[in-house]
Amino acid sequence: MTTVRNHDIATLRQLDMAHHLPAQSSYALQQQLGGSRVITHAQGCTITDGDGHSLLDGMAGLWCVNVGYGRAELAEVARAQMLELPFYNTFFRTATPPPIELAARLAGLLGGELQHVFFNNSGSESNDTVFRLVRTYWALKGQPQRTVFISRHNAYHGSTVASASLGGMDFMHVQGGLPIPGVEHVMQPYLFGEGFGEDPEAFGARAAAAIEERILAVGPENVAAFIGEPVQGAGGVIIPPPGYWQKVEAICRKYGILLVADEVICGFGRLGAWFGFQHFGFTPDIVSMAKGLSSGYLPISATGVSREIVETLRASGEEFTHGYTYSGHPVCAAVALRNLDIIEREDLVGRTARDTGPYLAAALAERIAPHPLVGEARSLGLIGAVEIVAEKGTNRRHPGGGKAAQMVRDHCIARGLMVRAVRDAIVMSPPLVITHAELDRLVDTIRAALDAAQADLAGA
Amino acid sequence: MTTVRNHDIATLRQLDMAHHLPAQSSYALQQQLGGSRVITHAQGCTITDGDGHSLLDGMAGLWCVNVGYGRAELAEVARAQMLELPFYNTFFRTATPPPIELAARLAGLLGGELQHVFFNNSGSESNDTVFRLVRTYWALKGQPQRTVFISRHNAYHGSTVASASLGGMDFMHVQGGLPIPGVEHVMQPYLFGEGFGEDPEAFGARAAAAIEERILAVGPENVAAFIGEPVQGAGGVIIPPPGYWQKVEAICRKYGILLVADEVICGFGRLGAWFGFQHFGFTPDIVSMAKGLSSGYLPISATGVSREIVETLRASGEEFTHGYTYSGHPVCAAVALRNLDIIEREDLVGRTARDTGPYLAAALAERIAPHPLVGEARSLGLIGAVEIVAEKGTNRRHPGGGKAAQMVRDHCIARGLMVRAVRDAIVMSPPLVITHAELDRLVDTIRAALDAAQADLAGA
Repeated sequence: MTTVRNHDIATLRQLDMAHHLPAQSSYALQQQLGGSRVITHAQGCTITDGDGHSLLDGMAGLWCVNVGYGRAELAEVARAQMLELPFYNTFFRTATPPPIELAARLAGLLGGELQHVFFNNSGSESNDTVFRLVRTYWALKGQPQRTVFISRHNAYHGSTVASASLGGMDFMHVQGGLPIPGVEHVMQPYLFGEGFGEDPEAFGARAAAAIEERILAVGPENVAAFIGEPVQGAGGVIIPPPGYWQKVEAICRKYGILLVADEVICGFGRLGAWFGFQHFGFTPDIVSMAKGLSSGYLPISATGVSREIVETLRASGEEFTHGYTYSGHPVCAAVALRNLDIIEREDLVGRTARDTGPYLAAALAERIAPHPLVGEARSLGLIGAVEIVAEKGTNRRHPGGGKAAQMVRDHCIARGLMVRAVRDAIVMSPPLVITHAELDRLVDTIRAALDAAQADLAGA
Repeated sequence: MTTVRNHDIATLRQLDMAHHLPAQSSYALQQQLGGSRVITHAQGCTITDGDGHSLLDGMAGLWCVNVGYGRAELAEVARAQMLELPFYNTFFRTATPPPIELAARLAGLLGGELQHVFFNNSGSESNDTVFRLVRTYWALKGQPQRTVFISRHNAYHGSTVASASLGGMDFMHVQGGLPIPGVEHVMQPYLFGEGFGEDPEAFGARAAAAIEERILAVGPENVAAFIGEPVQGAGGVIIPPPGYWQKVEAICRKYGILLVADEVICGFGRLGAWFGFQHFGFTPDIVSMAKGLSSGYLPISATGVSREIVETLRASGEEFTHGYTYSGHPVCAAVALRNLDIIEREDLVGRTARDTGPYLAAALAERIAPHPLVGEARSLGLIGAVEIVAEKGTNRRHPGGGKAAQMVRDHCIARGLMVRAVRDAIVMSPPLVITHAELDRLVDTIRAALDAAQADLAGA
């Protein structure tokens, strides 16, 4: 049984203001709000704060708690591994059982040539690994001038200097002097925002062609890799049109460029397949994984690497002078393994593909898409977005740069649903264990929040 | 009780070769060795591999297992927190109790103006946070041209693109096209290597002056921060001469440059103080912490930040657009809190300062320093190094670029002691719970390994 402690919330909020710097936050706002909202416990798809308010977690924590909260077996596995061996490194020609088993397990899930796995602590670190690995590979292949990465505007690949540079978030680039040299950003396949009214496949072809144009502008011999999320998550759940990924893959192959799939959000069932590249039917050379890998219960990320790349490193005899103290952490890897067991045992991937994903899509189509504030309601598997517009039938936005979406989000939270506002959209990514009744509640709450926001906007 | 599983080691080694990419490793060597050595369990200061060999862990895992292995209370805390709340983020104006409590606890330990704490997963990520935070601070102060970091050759600050760039490891820079722009490297305060025979204080002054010279060369108005480990760990346990840090601090203050202490290895008692800056008596503006923060039981790092920096961010009203999904992970923070309890309860800091540290130093002086292969045996608290030389009384090295030290290391491992070879030195950093008897065994094993290596070298 879980014993829930009685926390002194007022004191915690004071200490939060005095000492704690939350991530991706305004520290002025933290003061204005009197400290962060303190989440104290959670079960299933529900989180509860220190004042006793419960919220349906429409974001699975932060796109990660795929198996839901309260999984006692993950706590038992963590405890058992920590008693047996809490840590050992992989630097000293050494390893521990859990990361070896997890590497083999992931190789099986990735399939094909993706038979090797490098561990890190976060999606950011995995993409830093990608950055150093890709350039090292090309240098060993006798093409050291292949240093340029091509990515998309509004992509999210992490918050380290290199991973945020790979990402295409302009508001992040202004802090820290990013991007670093060697990263080129091209248009994203965002039909609603950048191809409104266009034929989807023609728009997808145009977005893919932008990659080829940039490759030619940079010089194909200088391009190391293209990196992309199968579905852009933090950018606002950008689902590319049919055919886009096939065209991207063909362009990469045409110029001999490595193709990197950032599966940090899409992996582990989110789209109704183990990985987004499997859903879209393309074959990357490198795959970044995190979040759903452990359902967020402990920090761990993994980088899947093709045979060709590892064979090149082996043939060189060189050391890959990269890796982290906690690469292959035994406790984190043990929890990830059991998390994969749960996903398999409960068929959360198949359930998302055949049951809950279509159920969410139908509910959004029936109850959200027709709303006067809504320009589009889209989803794939259990990830989705609702675009807020100023005029039905257009993609024209309300003034205020995302304020309307923030109003809808705040109305959702006030009604007991945690969702996120991204620019002019509400995004959702609930635990994969969500029930039909919970999905109905999620959709009905968004509907009620849209109504409330509409009244606010009419009165404004 | 700990139940030790029976692992199929032969299969694990096959899977390791087939699928697992260890950190900082040669994948050719991994194949030649038939896969990694599989560490399966550990207790106190002893690790055991799958073939039943036990080794005294002279490296505390990887400079991190300060409280030793087998701490059941840490496993219980992890389990309890995971049952109550395995994860929630700090992005959504939210937090959870453990990181708030840990931030307050660290503020108390850091003291003075260092009253704010940002969480990350690793030392690398903490230094990426430093990189983005420092530049953001200067931009908000109206000095956006202050972008340059000054660091030392042979410094280690991590393995991400930015943290490895801040670091001064040339062999890492060749992989990935590092360093990125905006990092300047100056001489390290390595008396034995670069100031052999010089007066220590005069050498320290020369090393500090190199920083000022570079500041003047870059233009003081362009320099954002100086970053350094109080004692360089992975670089070979470089203990700076007396007065060095006071001079560095004075230079930073003279030019209004931020001073960053990388305490990833030195923090949490390693030098016989809570932090290295406290031992050396200087006051940084930012402090990177990891490793001993959780004794490696779970991945977590923290960045201590001064009031002035946080006040600047608050006054701006701007969001710090930085942070990781697992920033402030509740399970990792809960384990770190209990780990700090253990360090305090058992007075591991004071014990290192007054008992085990001096005991190690005396043993090295008596039994290692006189050995014909040894140029210097130095330590501070429970971190130390033994320099291997070709001619006693000089710092002339054996041919082969570190091969002699690797021979000594391999003889240590064969005799049941895990230590690391760094260039031409053996380094050590045992758990802070190490006993006199274990320290004797550590020193005696190094002595025996030196004898064996001497015989090998004579025969070569």
